[in-house]
Amino acid sequence: MTRPADDLLATARQALIRVRHETPLVQCLTNQVVSNFTANVLLALGAAPAMVDIHEEAGPFARAASGVLVNLGTPHAEQRAAMTEAVASASRAGTPWVLDPVAIGSLPVRTALAHRLAAQGPAVVRGNASEIIALAGTGGGGRGVDATDEVESAAAAAGTLARATGAVVAVSGPVDLLTDGERTVRVTNGDPLLTRVTGGGCALGAVLAAFAPPAEPSPASDGDRLAAAVAAVTVYTVAAEVAAEHSTGPGSFAVAFLDALYGLDEETLEKRAAISWA
Amino acid sequence: MTRPADDLLATARQALIRVRHETPLVQCLTNQVVSNFTANVLLALGAAPAMVDIHEEAGPFARAASGVLVNLGTPHAEQRAAMTEAVASASRAGTPWVLDPVAIGSLPVRTALAHRLAAQGPAVVRGNASEIIALAGTGGGGRGVDATDEVESAAAAAGTLARATGAVVAVSGPVDLLTDGERTVRVTNGDPLLTRVTGGGCALGAVLAAFAPPAEPSPASDGDRLAAAVAAVTVYTVAAEVAAEHSTGPGSFAVAFLDALYGLDEETLEKRAAISWA
Amino acid sequence: MTRPADDLLATARQALIRVRHETPLVQCLTNQVVSNFTANVLLALGAAPAMVDIHEEAGPFARAASGVLVNLGTPHAEQRAAMTEAVASASRAGTPWVLDPVAIGSLPVRTALAHRLAAQGPAVVRGNASEIIALAGTGGGGRGVDATDEVESAAAAAGTLARATGAVVAVSGPVDLLTDGERTVRVTNGDPLLTRVTGGGCALGAVLAAFAPPAEPSPASDGDRLAAAVAAVTVYTVAAEVAAEHSTGPGSFAVAFLDALYGLDEETLEKRAAISWA
Repeated sequence: MTRPADDLLATARQALIRVRHETPLVQCLTNQVVSNFTANVLLALGAAPAMVDIHEEAGPFARAASGVLVNLGTPHAEQRAAMTEAVASASRAGTPWVLDPVAIGSLPVRTALAHRLAAQGPAVVRGNASEIIALAGTGGGGRGVDATDEVESAAAAAGTLARATGAVVAVSGPVDLLTDGERTVRVTNGDPLLTRVTGGGCALGAVLAAFAPPAEPSPASDGDRLAAAVAAVTVYTVAAEVAAEHSTGPGSFAVAFLDALYGLDEETLEKRAAISWA
Repeated sequence: MTRPADDLLATARQALIRVRHETPLVQCLTNQVVSNFTANVLLALGAAPAMVDIHEEAGPFARAASGVLVNLGTPHAEQRAAMTEAVASASRAGTPWVLDPVAIGSLPVRTALAHRLAAQGPAVVRGNASEIIALAGTGGGGRGVDATDEVESAAAAAGTLARATGAVVAVSGPVDLLTDGERTVRVTNGDPLLTRVTGGGCALGAVLAAFAPPAEPSPASDGDRLAAAVAAVTVYTVAAEVAAEHSTGPGSFAVAFLDALYGLDEETLEKRAAISWA
Repeated sequence: MTRPADDLLATARQALIRVRHETPLVQCLTNQVVSNFTANVLLALGAAPAMVDIHEEAGPFARAASGVLVNLGTPHAEQRAAMTEAVASASRAGTPWVLDPVAIGSLPVRTALAHRLAAQGPAVVRGNASEIIALAGTGGGGRGVDATDEVESAAAAAGTLARATGAVVAVSGPVDLLTDGERTVRVTNGDPLLTRVTGGGCALGAVLAAFAPPAEPSPASDGDRLAAAVAAVTVYTVAAEVAAEHSTGPGSFAVAFLDALYGLDEETLEKRAAISWA
């Protein structure tokens, strides 16, 4: 049973307020290239980043965190051990965690790790079309994080992956497609400059973790995981649109994007949000 | 015996000139999230960063450096070995080193390491209230780097820690409190946006290392380690105030902060500095 | 046989067009401090960065990449293994690779590694004067990446190194000197602010990898490796000049630099380029 798109927008508005009010603690086990930008995105939004990714600390921390991001961009051996530990701990504690299978397909270490982790109950899987297709096992992989933006070609794979893992699957591209295996939403906000800033996709994984509803529904969250993921994507891509209007290239865009996440008001979100079912 | 606050301001002015003139070489063994920002803060100030943090190089380098930062934000195994090596070498050579016990308290690896390092003669320990309380052993730890800003609650712990370790202890927060165990100084400069940029606290640790007086007093430094630490904090937080006036959010603030450190003149420092004893 | 300087400028113009058109995939095994900035520089230029630097992935990836950067700034043990693997694979596949021997001289681990890698056929070696002198074995090393800018003092060492390794050697400084061991070119563009941004030199190594001609000459590249390296340095340093005009310090400079790389047009490149033989 789908809800009206207006309802998704209302959830997005509430979720933004909730994040700013509750300051969710987001543990990030992410790649070295984007860890700084990712932390700054979370801080700009009002969340609290914690890059706890070492063996013997990642597990205990995942119990207390509000959400966990596992991003496979530079999966060094020690970090892989920490990821395994964090995912096990998050699963036991009911902490929602997000899997970002960066550049999987032909690279052997991360591809094997991604398949193993995907079977352990991520709340969300986020990737570009090539990565989602590779993880679903329905086709080959891309050449890296700049995979051709064929979001639509990944729609079937995303559904398959969602049903197989129980996760909400978010496919990033010019149009963002999100599905829980039964329902599908498209968000058409965003700006191409987001692809010219490293971490433009990766940091969204952290935002999805910040917006993931707690295991127990509360007055501040109806517990609809698809709607929460749509909220994260919409807030993120609307901020990108605002930033692009104040940019002359990717350098100024990245700066303006952090300012836009920080200053985004509910009116702007409502006016610009372009969310639709199926 | 305390000195007039005006005297601390004079030291701050001289210390800023000295850093720009002497380009101190600051070795940083710091966390991956903030290494870029930390290096850029040092470069903006006129110091020379060197992120030498591998086994068999960290020790030799610490002998030649002007100051060393040991920040426990992402203490991977290889970096922990390098930290141990660097601290031993710095201690033997008389190189002042700064300990930043990021997020200690309940996380087991870094907490044990912090206690071990604190016993080896840091020139400065910098942290937020929760971290200082945890290191002093006088209470529990926080949930991460965004610990509640109860600087005053850490005043007693800071004094205890300073007397136990021989270090100057700098507690960061809305008001910065610094003590050498006998004398206490407060600096009330700064801006909340500094807490919305990752590394806003961590990079201050590197600046404290850049400002630490050499073991041998010289015409350019009177060797008062508390006054030197106050100088570092004042320069840093005054620059934050200047930057906030040119910012529309944390993205533009971080950019303006580097520009402000680079361009800070003695007149602005004198006019804005808010330093007081006890 | 040298070509007219105008011819080098024509190559630079064509190379810029080629990079934007072909989106070369540049694998970076680089230091943690600058990986974010390096990726953003490549994205701004129109290239595709991929920071694949783990054991068992670095080798396979180097076969498919357009170019590889090996930067020794923070050579942790696992990354060293990946570097060895990537260089062997790149050499076999004919993928051009760039060696940046950061801060070699007295630091034992990286110095030994740099000498070993230099013997394996880099397409380009980039460093400051101290690093090039140290790698050529014709003198001592510097104290770090901010070595005294005595590019001219390194001219003889650069020639020796180029002839010994078969690489184009690029010495960075107020004047950039490039040589293939027979021919020498100087580029006098640039701005001192580039030395106040960490990675200002390191990211150039990645750009040299992006501009390195493919093993097989094509209509879009005449295969002259020296000319291609001159093109990379000229594009990079002309963008720095443009950025400096929109900056009030190193923070705003870094932002404007990314915008300038993104927006650099052929007219600006032609008007500003200052390239000369010998």
